[in-house]
Amino acid sequence: MRRIILLLVAVAAVAAVVVFTAPAFGNVDGEAAPIFGIKIFPGYRDWRLISVAHEEGNLNDLRAILGNDVAIKAYQAGKLPFPDGTIIARLAWNYVPSEENNKVFGRSQSFVAGPPMGVQFMVKDSRKYAATGGWGFAQFKDGKPQDESVHKTCFPCHVHVKARDFVADVGTGTRYAP
Amino acid sequence: MRRIILLLVAVAAVAAVVVFTAPAFGNVDGEAAPIFGIKIFPGYRDWRLISVAHEEGNLNDLRAILGNDVAIKAYQAGKLPFPDGTIIARLAWNYVPSEENNKVFGRSQSFVAGPPMGVQFMVKDSRKYAATGGWGFAQFKDGKPQDESVHKTCFPCHVHVKARDFVADVGTGTRYAP
Repeated sequence: MRRIILLLVAVAAVAAVVVFTAPAFGNVDGEAAPIFGIKIFPGYRDWRLISVAHEEGNLNDLRAILGNDVAIKAYQAGKLPFPDGTIIARLAWNYVPSEENNKVFGRSQSFVAGPPMGVQFMVKDSRKYAATGGWGFAQFKDGKPQDESVHKTCFPCHVHVKARDFVADVGTGTRYAP
Repeated sequence: MRRIILLLVAVAAVAAVVVFTAPAFGNVDGEAAPIFGIKIFPGYRDWRLISVAHEEGNLNDLRAILGNDVAIKAYQAGKLPFPDGTIIARLAWNYVPSEENNKVFGRSQSFVAGPPMGVQFMVKDSRKYAATGGWGFAQFKDGKPQDESVHKTCFPCHVHVKARDFVADVGTGTRYAP
């Protein structure tokens, strides 16, 4: 009887997890990114929000930084370093004016998310990625990983924010927006 | 025996819901907004992302638009009008340069979310809010609702986007960013 009850509780818990796990976005079964071997994570589009940002210049995007449950818990607790299992996703969209909104406001002031520009991930695994501060990096465009030369540039840039466990102010990883 | 099993499944399901329900942010037990009687919703900071935006001019903010489960389901299905129970939250933060990031890039191009500027809600209840297109509106600053004069301005502006069930391109409600 006790076994049956435990089994049922386990089944119900698993069912609940499945219900609450978001559907897959992007090419989840596709190619892994070079160097770090990371694929697009299922359901990342439904992860919770860490913060938002805007990059001018060549990037010219609006971005949202999302985190899996491990990441959000760590951000909300405000503790460094991030635990293994942390995954941070940076989603970027073209920075486009909202004609509709500008018409209502009577002036050009509104910018919204246009077509998607790609997604980046930072994955914490202190053993697997020991050579790069415990983080694996991946960048995808149109569901495909970018090439090795792109992935070689990730860590040398993030090394500037070693004091914050290599998590930069913008891009994959940021401060938590209250 | 069957009753016990059903009870256990129910308890496990409720426990799972509690685990997956986000903690409360903002002054949830505080004052309701005038006209529409809406209070800050518990856990809205952990709702899923609809899109992001930037307003220049007097607003000068970065914003994230989040939705409860009913809202996200409706957005992902791409169907109008939104069903009763839809809640859309617009979070805004001061638009501030990222000194840290600009230093790394060697030029001023990065903008991030600064101190919070407030939260707005749109709540769909076609009977209760029949006079305003089925939507209730609320705006909070520092956890407190803004006054009646502010809330009188909501619907007259959203009426411009009647064709999209009064959900504007920026602010509470927006298009879903893929």
